[in-house]
Parts: sequence; structure tokens; C-alpha cells
Amino acid sequence: MDTSAKTRTAISPRRDEDFPEWYQQVVRAAELAEPSEVRGCMVIRPWGYGIWENMQRQLDAMIRATGHRNAYFPLFIPLSYFAREAEHVEGFAKECAVVTHYRLKTDEEAGLIPDPESKLSEPLVVRPTSETIIGASYAKWVQSYRDLPILINQWCNIVRWEMRTRLFLRTTEFLWQEGHTVHETEAEAREETRRMLGVYEMFVRDHCAIPVFAGLKSDSEKFPGAVETMALEAMVQDRKAIQAGTSHFLGQNFARASGIQFQTREGKQEFGWTTSWGMTTRMVGTVVMAHGDDDGVILPPRIAPTPIVILPITTKEETSAKVLEACDRLAAELRTRKFLDDVPIQVEVDRRDLGGGVKNWEWIKKGVPLRVEIGPRDLEKNSVMVSRRDQPVKTKESIPVDEFVARAPEILGSIQKSLYARAKEFRDANTRPIDSKEEFYDFFTAKNASKPEIHGGFALAHWNGSREVEEQIKNELKVTIRVVPMDDSPEPGKCVFTGEPSARRVVWAKSY
Amino acid sequence: MDTSAKTRTAISPRRDEDFPEWYQQVVRAAELAEPSEVRGCMVIRPWGYGIWENMQRQLDAMIRATGHRNAYFPLFIPLSYFAREAEHVEGFAKECAVVTHYRLKTDEEAGLIPDPESKLSEPLVVRPTSETIIGASYAKWVQSYRDLPILINQWCNIVRWEMRTRLFLRTTEFLWQEGHTVHETEAEAREETRRMLGVYEMFVRDHCAIPVFAGLKSDSEKFPGAVETMALEAMVQDRKAIQAGTSHFLGQNFARASGIQFQTREGKQEFGWTTSWGMTTRMVGTVVMAHGDDDGVILPPRIAPTPIVILPITTKEETSAKVLEACDRLAAELRTRKFLDDVPIQVEVDRRDLGGGVKNWEWIKKGVPLRVEIGPRDLEKNSVMVSRRDQPVKTKESIPVDEFVARAPEILGSIQKSLYARAKEFRDANTRPIDSKEEFYDFFTAKNASKPEIHGGFALAHWNGSREVEEQIKNELKVTIRVVPMDDSPEPGKCVFTGEPSARRVVWAKSY
Repeated sequence: MDTSAKTRTAISPRRDEDFPEWYQQVVRAAELAEPSEVRGCMVIRPWGYGIWENMQRQLDAMIRATGHRNAYFPLFIPLSYFAREAEHVEGFAKECAVVTHYRLKTDEEAGLIPDPESKLSEPLVVRPTSETIIGASYAKWVQSYRDLPILINQWCNIVRWEMRTRLFLRTTEFLWQEGHTVHETEAEAREETRRMLGVYEMFVRDHCAIPVFAGLKSDSEKFPGAVETMALEAMVQDRKAIQAGTSHFLGQNFARASGIQFQTREGKQEFGWTTSWGMTTRMVGTVVMAHGDDDGVILPPRIAPTPIVILPITTKEETSAKVLEACDRLAAELRTRKFLDDVPIQVEVDRRDLGGGVKNWEWIKKGVPLRVEIGPRDLEKNSVMVSRRDQPVKTKESIPVDEFVARAPEILGSIQKSLYARAKEFRDANTRPIDSKEEFYDFFTAKNASKPEIHGGFALAHWNGSREVEEQIKNELKVTIRVVPMDDSPEPGKCVFTGEPSARRVVWAKSY
Repeated sequence: MDTSAKTRTAISPRRDEDFPEWYQQVVRAAELAEPSEVRGCMVIRPWGYGIWENMQRQLDAMIRATGHRNAYFPLFIPLSYFAREAEHVEGFAKECAVVTHYRLKTDEEAGLIPDPESKLSEPLVVRPTSETIIGASYAKWVQSYRDLPILINQWCNIVRWEMRTRLFLRTTEFLWQEGHTVHETEAEAREETRRMLGVYEMFVRDHCAIPVFAGLKSDSEKFPGAVETMALEAMVQDRKAIQAGTSHFLGQNFARASGIQFQTREGKQEFGWTTSWGMTTRMVGTVVMAHGDDDGVILPPRIAPTPIVILPITTKEETSAKVLEACDRLAAELRTRKFLDDVPIQVEVDRRDLGGGVKNWEWIKKGVPLRVEIGPRDLEKNSVMVSRRDQPVKTKESIPVDEFVARAPEILGSIQKSLYARAKEFRDANTRPIDSKEEFYDFFTAKNASKPEIHGGFALAHWNGSREVEEQIKNELKVTIRVVPMDDSPEPGKCVFTGEPSARRVVWAKSY
């Protein structure tokens, strides 16, 4: 495609020029977040946090509906707790922020320093995940099978020290929810693990408008200490994979480490069967990368802080009061309506004293699903000028006010659907069964002149199950197994790398 | 009163026997929270967290309605930021958790230790409050008067190292919201400070059913770095004061420290005028102490995780299915109703296979406002047996089902009101103008045989404004000035301690 003919875009560079830089620019232009001067930590600005709040409220309702209740456990984990599960420590030790002192003092030479006399006898780890600290409470709460299941979720901040960070996708501090459950039997715990993956899948699909592949992680990508990790993998517009929610079956590993024991129906002592599952602020970045275009963010209406913004055109002083009044009236009417699953319509009237073009472009970059302009001419015609963010930015439709109020829920629903359809079409176009090593290497090699229209994406290829093969592909192509699908009708075949037998195709991709 | 004649209570000791111990027992019996093995940190259990979630949702709506938006800033504050405001450092240095390392390693002798090679060149303070870290962002966001006001709120966890802790009231980690705003003028910032105190007052009164005194803190009790601190003070049942929300006018102190400067309308450079204001999980403990009785917690319906619990009486197997069905039907009907300001009625049906008495007492201790029993006999009469938690636990009323459904919103509203009235009556009965030093000392001295019916409470007494007097009273009686009222018609008089002139009475009390 000849890109020189393209019109100028609001975000520079364009996605096809430099995707990582496009992402940084989009996040900045939409005022979603920015790096803080604290190494690796981000500041989530109101527009970005508003998206997270919507995700949180909607996912929280689904977590409640499946019988879970929220609680809150300490931020700090004593080193000795943390050390109880060997694989767990191994997995997280290299990225832990450690609190060693509890007081500051002013030193004459060095200025403000941690007071040496306040050194903790046991350092505290800032939670990188809470299995061990929550397990310590569960060990006290669980005595008998009658106390089970325990179904608890926590919304909190998490710290995993990162050297190379990217806003939302990989930061030292992030926000998430983590569910932690204990069950009487292995079967129940396995069922819970799947159920919550299903909840995430529904949330990502129906709320974030992103299709995902669900499946098991290979052993090398499992959560440290888990028996099985299930995950969702979404494709974003550089055709890489982003993990969008995980659910872990922990067997009795953490119950053993924390001493979560119960008396069974038969009067024996047994360790509980535990699960954990989480979704993070990473999802905000995933939405940006999945739906955004060269003019900025595009938000699915359901999770947009404001799915509709009304822009009064008040250039003429004599009509300005009337225009503003009409805008407020429209906003009030829209707020009484709901869309999709009974989502009340939020509306913002942008009354700021700025040029109409400036305001319009700000909201385009922020990704508001519907922009509604009202000026003196619209007033005369008793109509509004409506722009959908999922259509080219210059497309506008004049709609009579009453008709717009009546149709707004349907239009928002239709944007939600069109974003999903577009993301699915893109994902499907860049997902292909691959049956030879050569084709596999071709697929993932950049600048492959023979197939310029596509390189990379999701490869569905057979694999012999060996870790060595995974390692090799990772080293040579930076490609890993994202998930091993869990469908019931696997298609056996031969490993594309070794020719050895394979029970099913697995999903390979480059990933964030 | 002869207490030996009292019937046995669910909580032991009673409030009049040992209030602090009663509090610990109530919090435990209601499963609100428990100490964790991490020094000073608490585990907030689902019932306690459910109260906090309601407070959070309701207060958040009020914060939004006054034009604020939520955002999120880093947990960690570099030492150098923190050091920028001298009084601020002075105030918080002694209670800061300090992160000094970012990795763990396994040492052959010592086991898991902070990796010495991962020592941070600049230690990080875990936020004890966020003025300095948020100020660093605001300094970047504010260039011109056009960027003002900035009206942002954050919900997060906070760490202030505490040696002596009490669940909810004083813990090393707690949850809160902190508003941080920047304004163009001093007048606007002062107005904001008052507005948010007003929001808190409304929230504490109308949602938590607790009356408060609002006013200014004396200099010695001000927020470190503030020009003025306003606060609300509630009285709990041992007649001590608990601070229920504060709002600080920070002048230009923090703007200067963080470099928040803007170009004025006249083209000059000026520092912004900032405010901050917060309310914490302490409010959960305040509700317990203000409303609880010797049988446990009593929750205002508006903030109860479940204002109504339905208890099926399923002792007879042949009627048990029908009873459960009737309970579910009632729950479904109630859930379509709203009470007070449009609060949807949450209902829980307790289907657990436990004895009716056990269940009933559990919910009494948890403080559910309305308990509704349905058994085979009620089915026959098509009625329900209703118990209000604000009435003696054995009081029950049989109400026809339809009538109950219709009246439930009104009953919940009436419980909300009766709790406020009771708390106000108690507060007023234990608040008195005091006009002599002797009377003041009498009032606050325990075991004062001459007035056994009352010792301690809120004393409204004149004060000469001197810090020395405050110090002396604090040392001798552990009594401090809680607030200096801000009403417009002060009544001048003479300081009860020195005889010197005083512009108005101030509120003195022992406090948490």
C-alpha cells in the first residue's frame, strides 16, 4: 500500500511505521497514563483510570455473581512466609521490592536516610502476588470441610520490579484483582479454575470487545508453584500476543506450604485444594493496542469513562446560551437511557472555552465512542451532528434530536459489536495452521519478501511437548507457546520441528 | 444500675466492663477483621470489607458530584521528593516503611536475604500520604491558570508504621481516599477545603448515622505542612473522640516544595494553592464503636453489606423445600425495592445447614439491620417474623409478607434514623459547657464518685490559644483540643485554665 497518499493522522508515527512508539504516543495523547519519576511506576491519569474503574466495576459484578466476596490482606509479606513454596520464591525473588527499615532520620552529612536503628529483624517483601500471605489467614480459617469452599477476591496494588517497562503492559507497580479459593476436592478446584477463566473470557470478549484464545500454559510458562496455569491470549495490532487474564490450579502445593488443612467428611486431615486467578491494569493497554488507530484510542462503549461527549459550538455569542442549554437537555435525556446489558449512559458536555477543532481532536484521541456536536444551525433544524469513533473521523451524520436520543443505545451497542468484529477479523486473518518448520520460520521472520502482506501472528502448529523445542524456538525467533487449547476434540498430528507425534496444535506467537 | 440482673450478652466483656476489650471481641465476633502476622497490618475480612466497599461507593459518588475525578499515583516516593517539605518530613519520618532493595537472593548460611547488589541508590518510602509524589505530577500538568483547578482523588493503601495498633483505628497499613487539588487563588482553595469537609460531614451523618463536630485543628494537631487542618470529630461509646475525616488547606507550601507554578491571568508566575483531604478505613471502626451494643455490631442499613438477611427455618424435612422457595421469592421481591436515597436493597438468604439459633446469633453479632425468619408456620399464615437490630434481640414482629415487602424500605429508613438519633442523644448527653478548671479536671477524671453517671466526653471550654496550656492538659489528663468550631457567632469568654480572654469555646476530649 502506498502510505504517502494517506491523510495526516493525529498520532505520529502511524501504527505501520513504528508500533511501539505509536503506542507510547497514543497513551500520552489520550492522557491515559505517564511514566513517573519513580523507576518503573506509572501515573494513571483520570481518563485511563476511568477505563480501569469501569473494567473493575463490571468484572467485580461477575466475580460476585459466581459467589466470591472481596476482602483485603496485607501489602507486606514476611520473608519467611514468602520462602515457604520453593518454586514460588524461585519465580519471584528477582523482582521483589524489599522493606528493610521502618523509620527515617536526618544524618548531618548524608541528609535524610533510613534510620539504622530501625532495621527490621525480618525484611518484608512488597506483595508480588498474595498466595503466601493469604494462605496464612486461610490456614486459621479452615478447620473442617464445613468451612469450605473459601471464595475470596482482592483488588489491590502489586509490585514486581521491572527493568524494562511499558505503560500498562509492564510496570513495577500495577493494579489487579486476585482471587484465592480453597476447595474440598481436586475436582472442585479444577472446576473453579476453569470457571474463572470462563468469566475472564466473557469479560474480555463482551466488555473489552477482544476475542481470545483460551488454554493451558506449557510448563515453562506456568505460574511459579502452580500445577496448571490457564490463560487467555489476545492478539493486538502488531500481531503479538498479550496475556489477558490467568487462572491457576495450585493443587495442594500452597496449602501444604501455608498449612491449610481440614478435617474431611471421613474425619481425616487433608490439605485443601487451592486456586488463584487475576486480571490487571495491563488490560487497559491491551484495549489500546487492540482497537486504537492512527488517530488515537478507540474505546468500546461499555468501558469508556464517557461513551458520549457533547460538544457545544458556541462561536456566536448571541446563540451560545441556547446551544449550551440544548446540550444540557440532551445530556440529561441520554443519562436516563441504558445500553447493552443495562449500562447507564454516561455523558459529558465539554463546556471548556477552547476552539471546536481542538476539543474535537482531543476526544478523538481519547477514543470516545460517540461525539455529538450542537451548534446554532443544528438548533434551528432541531438536530445533532453525530460522529462514531469506529468510522473515519470526518464522517458525520445529522440526526434529529429525538431520533438520536431513541437510537443512542442501539448506536453504542453497534459500536461495541463493530469493534469486536474488527478485532476478530484481524485476529483470524493473522492466525494460521502451520505444518512445516520452514513455513513456521517464514511466518515469524520479518522482512520476508515472499509474503509481505503478513509476517507473524498466531501460528497453530503441532508440537512434541518438549521443553527443548520451546527453548530453541524462543531463542531463535522470540516465539513462544501462548496456550495449549483445551477443546475436547484435538486433532493429532506431527510436531513441525521434530516430526514426533503430537496430540493437538498449540498456539505460538511473539508476545508482550 | 445493677448490672448483675442483665441477661447474658453475646459479647463478653460488656461495654461498661472493658470497652477496649469489648471492641476487640466485637470486631472478631462479627468477622470484620483480624490482626495479621505482619506487624501492625490487619486482614479485612469480607464482612468488614463489604462495609468499606459501601462507604467507598457512596463517598465516591459524592466526590464525583463535586467535580473530582479519580486517578492513581505510585506507591513509592523517592526519599528526595519526600524531603522537599520540611514540616512534612518531620511529621512522617518516624513512621515510614523504607524500601532499600529490589531483589532477593539465597545465601548459603542466612537463607533468603535482600540481595546486597540490588541496593537502591535512593531508598523509596512507602507512601504515608501522597502530597509530594502527586505534586511532582501536578508540577508537569500545570502551566497556566487555564489548567486550573486540578480536582483529583485517589483510593489506595497507605503505610504509617505503628507500634501500638488497634484494628481499623490504628494500623500500619490502612485504606483511604486522598483528594489533592490545585487552585488559582487562595480563596478557591479555602472554599474547596471547606466544601470537602462538608461532604465528609454529610457522609458521616447521613450514611454512617454519626453526628460530628466540625472545626479547625489547633496548630499542634495540624497536618504536617498544612496551613490549616479542618476535621470532624465523632464521639464513640466510651465518650472518646475519633477523627472522622480531615481536610487541609495547604497554602502554597506544597506547591513551592513540588514546583507547581502557573502563569496567571496577568502573565505572572505564581505557585498554585493546594488542598488535600482524606477519609480512611478507620471509619469502619468508628461505626462499630458508635453503634455497637453488648450483642455485637449494629450497622446503619445504608452501609451494611446486607441490610436484610432471610433465615429459612428448615427443621422439618417435609416443608423445607417450600420454605426455601418462599425465602428466595421474598428475596427477589425485596431486591427490586430501594430505600432512602435510592439505595437498592441487598438481601442474603442464609441457606447454610446450621441450627437456627446459631445462624441468628451470627447475624446479630454481624449487625445486620433486619433479620427475617420464615418457617412452616409463617408459610401457613403467609407472614414473616421480623427482628430489627436496633431493638432488643428477642423482639420479633410477625408481618404479612406483602405488607413487609411494601414496608421494608420504610423500616430500613427508620433504623437508619433511629441509630443516628441514638448516637446524637448519647453525644449530646456527654457534651457539656465547662467554665472552671476544677470542673474540667473533674469531668475528665475517672472514678469521680461525686458524678458517677458521667465522666469524660466532650467539654466545650474556653481556651487562651496557647500551646503551653494544650501541652499541660495533654500531659495531665490525656485530653486534647479536638476542634475549634468554625461557626460564625462565637461566644467570647475567659480561658478556664488561665482566665485570659478567649474568642470562643473549643471542643476538648480524650481521643483515639
